[in-house]
Amino acid sequence: MMDIDMILSMVSNPTRRRILEALVREPCYPLQLSKEIGVSQQAIMKNLDLLEKNGMVVSHQVTSSIGPMRAMYAPTSEFTLVIDMRNRMFVANIIEEEEGGVQEETPKTENLDSARQEISQIDREIEALERERSALVRKREQLIYSAMSKLGSDMTYGHRDLMYQLLNRPSEPMEDVIQDMDEGRGSIRKKLAEIDNAMRQ
Amino acid sequence: MMDIDMILSMVSNPTRRRILEALVREPCYPLQLSKEIGVSQQAIMKNLDLLEKNGMVVSHQVTSSIGPMRAMYAPTSEFTLVIDMRNRMFVANIIEEEEGGVQEETPKTENLDSARQEISQIDREIEALERERSALVRKREQLIYSAMSKLGSDMTYGHRDLMYQLLNRPSEPMEDVIQDMDEGRGSIRKKLAEIDNAMRQ
Repeated sequence: MMDIDMILSMVSNPTRRRILEALVREPCYPLQLSKEIGVSQQAIMKNLDLLEKNGMVVSHQVTSSIGPMRAMYAPTSEFTLVIDMRNRMFVANIIEEEEGGVQEETPKTENLDSARQEISQIDREIEALERERSALVRKREQLIYSAMSKLGSDMTYGHRDLMYQLLNRPSEPMEDVIQDMDEGRGSIRKKLAEIDNAMRQ
Repeated sequence: MMDIDMILSMVSNPTRRRILEALVREPCYPLQLSKEIGVSQQAIMKNLDLLEKNGMVVSHQVTSSIGPMRAMYAPTSEFTLVIDMRNRMFVANIIEEEEGGVQEETPKTENLDSARQEISQIDREIEALERERSALVRKREQLIYSAMSKLGSDMTYGHRDLMYQLLNRPSEPMEDVIQDMDEGRGSIRKKLAEIDNAMRQ
């Protein structure tokens, strides 16, 4: 399990993002990175050390025909990070790539143009999925909004908080959500009954 | 257009993430946030100021029947942030929610249970889309990998860099990608011909 705090703190730095961008392409020496990104080798080293300490890159010593051993860096993690900030929804999520997932047959690319066309087609499909996902997130938002708006002004912050937690963790048993709340069971039961009553109207 | 550096630096702080999480639910006073999140009001204020300066929240003064005017904070942005770090792919992207997008008919929720079931169903659909997207990203990865591996060991870093740029910006005209490269046109043309030749073998 990768830690979202760690990943966000690593990728929030633009230089570190550019280092990762370069390393996913191919393993590099610090000197190469310094030239390519245009920052001092000292700054590159500082950020490589941080990335390595946090397990996002790994280094190994490489012998060179000319000169001494040099450290070469390669990335070690694969993930997709998604943060949704919407009306009544804030979710940060990491989807880790499973090792050895389904290996589909890779179509043979015949030349540069056809490879670019195929990748471009995939990019369009990815975009279409993102739009579809966006519409679903919006529908979710609206469902929560319409449910929450049934609570009248006589309801307290505690009622809204309870309902919000229950709606945002819809796949967990109600009992588990209630257990996590910092409140007595009797008082929660009472609020639940009042909420359900308001919703049926 | 929201700035990815700004958003990442804002959400990389766990306290700020928890503040945003609370504010998307409903506008809050700093005191409420301090109690709910369990950090000092001073720390809450410092982070609210930062969020406001960067345009992610807005405050307005609210009169209260008891006591002086108080500042109440509300979120101002809606977005989805996606970062893919894969083998031969590192992309950070912000998808902004369009104002007044398609407003689908929101189904009436009859009670708390049925609302939770509907939201849970949407969550499953979102997860399915994410898996589908993941498979596409992996297919993209494999296409780039298989194309890049056609370049023999006689090719230089410059060849690989050129090809990588061309494959990762597949929907742009080749000319635009080439123009952004820090290299003479003649030398790029020569590399291109060598790459295309390697790919046809």
